[in-house]
Amino acid sequence: MPHLTLEYSANLRAGGDFAALCRRLADVLAAQRDGDNPVYGAIRVRAILCDDYCIADGAADAGFVHARLAIGAGRSDAVKRATGDALFDAMKSHFARQYEAHGLALSLEVAEFSESGTWKHNNLHARFRKQP
Amino acid sequence: MPHLTLEYSANLRAGGDFAALCRRLADVLAAQRDGDNPVYGAIRVRAILCDDYCIADGAADAGFVHARLAIGAGRSDAVKRATGDALFDAMKSHFARQYEAHGLALSLEVAEFSESGTWKHNNLHARFRKQP
Amino acid sequence: MPHLTLEYSANLRAGGDFAALCRRLADVLAAQRDGDNPVYGAIRVRAILCDDYCIADGAADAGFVHARLAIGAGRSDAVKRATGDALFDAMKSHFARQYEAHGLALSLEVAEFSESGTWKHNNLHARFRKQP
Repeated sequence: MPHLTLEYSANLRAGGDFAALCRRLADVLAAQRDGDNPVYGAIRVRAILCDDYCIADGAADAGFVHARLAIGAGRSDAVKRATGDALFDAMKSHFARQYEAHGLALSLEVAEFSESGTWKHNNLHARFRKQP
Repeated sequence: MPHLTLEYSANLRAGGDFAALCRRLADVLAAQRDGDNPVYGAIRVRAILCDDYCIADGAADAGFVHARLAIGAGRSDAVKRATGDALFDAMKSHFARQYEAHGLALSLEVAEFSESGTWKHNNLHARFRKQP
Repeated sequence: MPHLTLEYSANLRAGGDFAALCRRLADVLAAQRDGDNPVYGAIRVRAILCDDYCIADGAADAGFVHARLAIGAGRSDAVKRATGDALFDAMKSHFARQYEAHGLALSLEVAEFSESGTWKHNNLHARFRKQP
């Protein structure tokens, strides 16, 4: 159950098209393969608006997007590296125009869920299989 | 100082009653016992609305709630397991109607605070003790 | 790339001046030194509003602010301790009035980014250097 959470500064909201970005990053995750097998299922991506923020010395002409991907433990370093590279390429591409126009800080971290335990309950697989 | 943070898709906001859910999950945490002793004090539960998100392949007919519980290190595996089970039962019960009606993905992780340090300052114990 | 994220209860929004708090905490991070060298660069601080929440037993007369600082691995315990102390002093000072007036729980954790990897792309250094 990969969970990708974006936190972003409110000054990017108007032009950031975060709905499209979430969709694009979900597609990137769905496309990851380990050999012939998909690496991730039951993907969830979301973006959280931060009304109040301060970047570097508080320059008004700057925005940020920070992404945190949490995945189950046990994937190889190569798989994690490829996932991070692909997600981050998509983020850079999505914000290429803003990067030229003003201060922008993009960042991504990949983390594994804690060993203390995870619980899940969803009907996504069942519901999607019902569809032709 | 257990901290429980929910992130949820905006399509669940209207019917999700997250205020009641936060209260219910706080009650679940307060009820946990290790022998005769309460396991948790100074409980804080909150829910964060995610306006933009993508679940699986972007099907509009799906919502998600992800919960992350962070606790101090050192509880036994049995205590952590019982806590997670009780919280997740409450989440499933709270959303039983939505689970029947549309796509829904519920998840929970339990994590320990980093060894790098925590700081706390609160007047909750003092204030609550003052009350009859 | 230090990332500081605050989550706070909505009842603190009106009087909390989170824009000023974010700026103050960024200044605290920028002021940290290890010997003569700044410890942190490309600082990002943000605050996330939590509309729904429950503190302790749900007493309406209580608010919370929880801060999580994520930093790259490898700083000494002394540096991490000094950083946490300085940030938390600033938080306590910022909310001193509220602490006298009603229930308030402040907390801070310091964590290191996962070993699974981080990615970054920003033009902040270049842009700030251009300025006189």
